[in-house]
Amino acid sequence: MRKVDSYPFYVEPFHVDFMGRMFLGILGNHLLNAAGNHSQRRGWGIGALNETRHTWVLSRLSIELEDIPRQCEHGSIETWVESVIKLFTNRNFAILREDGTPYGYARSIWAMIDLETRKPSDLLTLYGGDILNYVVSEEEKQCPIAGHGRFRFRDAQLVRTIDTHYSDVDINGHINSIKYIEHILDLFPMERFRDQRLQRFEIAYKTESYIGDKLSFFVQEIDENETDVEVRKNEGEVVCQAKVRFK
Amino acid sequence: MRKVDSYPFYVEPFHVDFMGRMFLGILGNHLLNAAGNHSQRRGWGIGALNETRHTWVLSRLSIELEDIPRQCEHGSIETWVESVIKLFTNRNFAILREDGTPYGYARSIWAMIDLETRKPSDLLTLYGGDILNYVVSEEEKQCPIAGHGRFRFRDAQLVRTIDTHYSDVDINGHINSIKYIEHILDLFPMERFRDQRLQRFEIAYKTESYIGDKLSFFVQEIDENETDVEVRKNEGEVVCQAKVRFK
Repeated sequence: MRKVDSYPFYVEPFHVDFMGRMFLGILGNHLLNAAGNHSQRRGWGIGALNETRHTWVLSRLSIELEDIPRQCEHGSIETWVESVIKLFTNRNFAILREDGTPYGYARSIWAMIDLETRKPSDLLTLYGGDILNYVVSEEEKQCPIAGHGRFRFRDAQLVRTIDTHYSDVDINGHINSIKYIEHILDLFPMERFRDQRLQRFEIAYKTESYIGDKLSFFVQEIDENETDVEVRKNEGEVVCQAKVRFK
Repeated sequence: MRKVDSYPFYVEPFHVDFMGRMFLGILGNHLLNAAGNHSQRRGWGIGALNETRHTWVLSRLSIELEDIPRQCEHGSIETWVESVIKLFTNRNFAILREDGTPYGYARSIWAMIDLETRKPSDLLTLYGGDILNYVVSEEEKQCPIAGHGRFRFRDAQLVRTIDTHYSDVDINGHINSIKYIEHILDLFPMERFRDQRLQRFEIAYKTESYIGDKLSFFVQEIDENETDVEVRKNEGEVVCQAKVRFK
């Protein structure tokens, strides 16, 4: 089996913002589907994993776009495993136009956890280390965007607290990874999306939150184009951290 | 060209709720896409219409399900025009399993408005009344669910007020029709979705709301399984009314 898979996408009429640009949450959902399909086809996807009581958990996601797909455009997402480091694997994505030129790229980090202990498993031995057969080195295939950055929250200001509801929750009863992206982008006024566009979005998932949890959003301006956001649940534990860069 | 079109759908991993059932908003989006594609292919879709300064506006949508599609299932949506009454057209939908048996059905009412005057156009003469060539009578094809009901709000109680943000808005700058469905279902506690399931959902769209509008949700219990919801913007005008029935 080939190491790189390609998944088509189409930008549906209601999957774009008021500027006609695809919502980042929708793109994020396509990336997760591409990742899921890629691992599924190779025997270490969620379906296969439930039988052995393991599941993938997304730890980091960084998306950088030169251009945002627009309403009714067709494109594709290539995805491949860049490396495996015992408890984590790096998976990359190329987000391509119909003619094969890039809209942009994405990087992600995943762990595979044991559903009983909730602890990460050793990817080098799980499933006979089969994932190693699919590693594509940076020499073979490039993902020309910066790696995941670090967050340092010093004087972040609480700007919004929301309740979570039925629509926020996925099949595992957790707040859906994509919903955080939507709630974080909802912190910005529409002028930011009208006068600028999203250039890079990074998110680090720290812990799960559940339906009924209150999510508080703390914002720290890095410069006029870049903002860090920390999401805490019930005024305590950090759920995720994000960096949003406009251009 | 045939009068009835069929569009496939797949229930994506993140398009289901914590019970593994497809979110109604996702199904609603598929219905709108099927409607858009059906009219597009016949020359009176949004793309064609923008040139002549007309667009479709959804007035009513009623969905009734015997069974809700589940994660990773494949299905299809059939759609056809049931009737045309000068300023409005009735469009029906069958939501089918892979084997052709029905999950359920939906009914909808649309107007075509002039983008300058914002007034509805006469469908019997617009585009030479071409839409009349595609009417499928109830004898030819059945939609065996009740028609759109009436709303009577007498003692509805305000239960929630929310701000609207970037993610709520579509390419026209309006709050997306589907987002109202999500916000309305978010009024119900998760126990309702765990112990029961959605059986019927009706919505009547009254006027547009825009980013930044505050939406207030007024709830009136009809009986233990049925709830009416009225959504007002900025403590005034009615934006939409909905009826939610669990089973």
